[in-house]
Amino acid sequence: MLKLYGFSVSNYYNMVKLALLEKGLPFEEVPFYAGTSSEALTISPRGKVPVLGVEQGFVNETAVILDYIEQSQTGKPLLPSDPFERAQVLALAKEIELYIELPGRACYPEAFFGMPVADAIKEKTKAELLLGFASLARHAKFAPYVAGDSLSVADLYFLYSVPLACAVAKKLFDLDLLAELPAAKALLERLEQNPHVQRIAKDKEAGMPAFMAMVASKR
Amino acid sequence: MLKLYGFSVSNYYNMVKLALLEKGLPFEEVPFYAGTSSEALTISPRGKVPVLGVEQGFVNETAVILDYIEQSQTGKPLLPSDPFERAQVLALAKEIELYIELPGRACYPEAFFGMPVADAIKEKTKAELLLGFASLARHAKFAPYVAGDSLSVADLYFLYSVPLACAVAKKLFDLDLLAELPAAKALLERLEQNPHVQRIAKDKEAGMPAFMAMVASKR
Repeated sequence: MLKLYGFSVSNYYNMVKLALLEKGLPFEEVPFYAGTSSEALTISPRGKVPVLGVEQGFVNETAVILDYIEQSQTGKPLLPSDPFERAQVLALAKEIELYIELPGRACYPEAFFGMPVADAIKEKTKAELLLGFASLARHAKFAPYVAGDSLSVADLYFLYSVPLACAVAKKLFDLDLLAELPAAKALLERLEQNPHVQRIAKDKEAGMPAFMAMVASKR
Repeated sequence: MLKLYGFSVSNYYNMVKLALLEKGLPFEEVPFYAGTSSEALTISPRGKVPVLGVEQGFVNETAVILDYIEQSQTGKPLLPSDPFERAQVLALAKEIELYIELPGRACYPEAFFGMPVADAIKEKTKAELLLGFASLARHAKFAPYVAGDSLSVADLYFLYSVPLACAVAKKLFDLDLLAELPAAKALLERLEQNPHVQRIAKDKEAGMPAFMAMVASKR
């Protein structure tokens, strides 16, 4: 059976978890906080989550895990079969990762854990998030899903990156990044009604105390 | 015919160009500096290069373009067909992108264009590059190629990211990131003997004056 290594507070972990649930694939969750122990680095060379454990070994990196699941497993497709349409979905997912998730992530320590982030990094995040959301507005279809009329890999990135980036922008810059994107707000509301998304949110809430204790122990 | 939009100084452009050359695919190079004009944003929603122009429209993001070419075009494969082996190659490529190319890129302005980068950003780059190269040493095979015995997508990322990150580390931190990775050095030397790599290097040199003029005009 597929093993999903990670923890339920990780947004990347939850992208993969939602893919597995949507496809109806059986999987086991293995608590794994990564880090730099030699055991952890055997599972993940850069000490990151999530990791997918399969018969032959470990698959690292969310985008790669999602590709692996799509290539090798059964269940509802989260990518179109036509190469051009597939590329449009993957480009949207990648744009959300590079231009929204990663700039937002640089400020997670201050926004979510009270650990100050340098002004130079905050300024860079702010500029990049503004460009990233402008790009999303330009490229996404919201019809009603990010890439068209069905749930795709792009929605996984959207659902588990955009609210975090918006929280960063609100807390640190007093900016509402979705103010001019009502279709994106509507899609978030729609996705939050999905029973798998609700289960993941519940698991995240349940995992939060242990995660915060882990963060505090590392300070 | 496939159209490759971008410019020959871009390392991401050159990853795709090398894939096209290695596969023996005909393509036309279209000079494109991206940016934020409305025309440019029609081609690339975040104003980035490279972009692949195909019959149905534009494909953005290097990783997505490489996937699209692999899925839809003929020529020498740059990914294994077995899903697990394919995932290992893609994970190596992604790790080089996220943990070597992107941290290095944050310091390109100071390392290559004399534009100062804030200390907080430089410190972050230094810490991330050290972790990124440790991860590469742990995961890459160098047998002799990054992911095994044949050239793959991981080598494209390696060849066009590692030397730039090393130049950043040398100039800004006086660090030799390959000091303990002789196999990586040997692979760079081997790749530099490849005639397609040599042609790309020559094109880069020829394109450098126009690129520097463009950079200067934007200051």
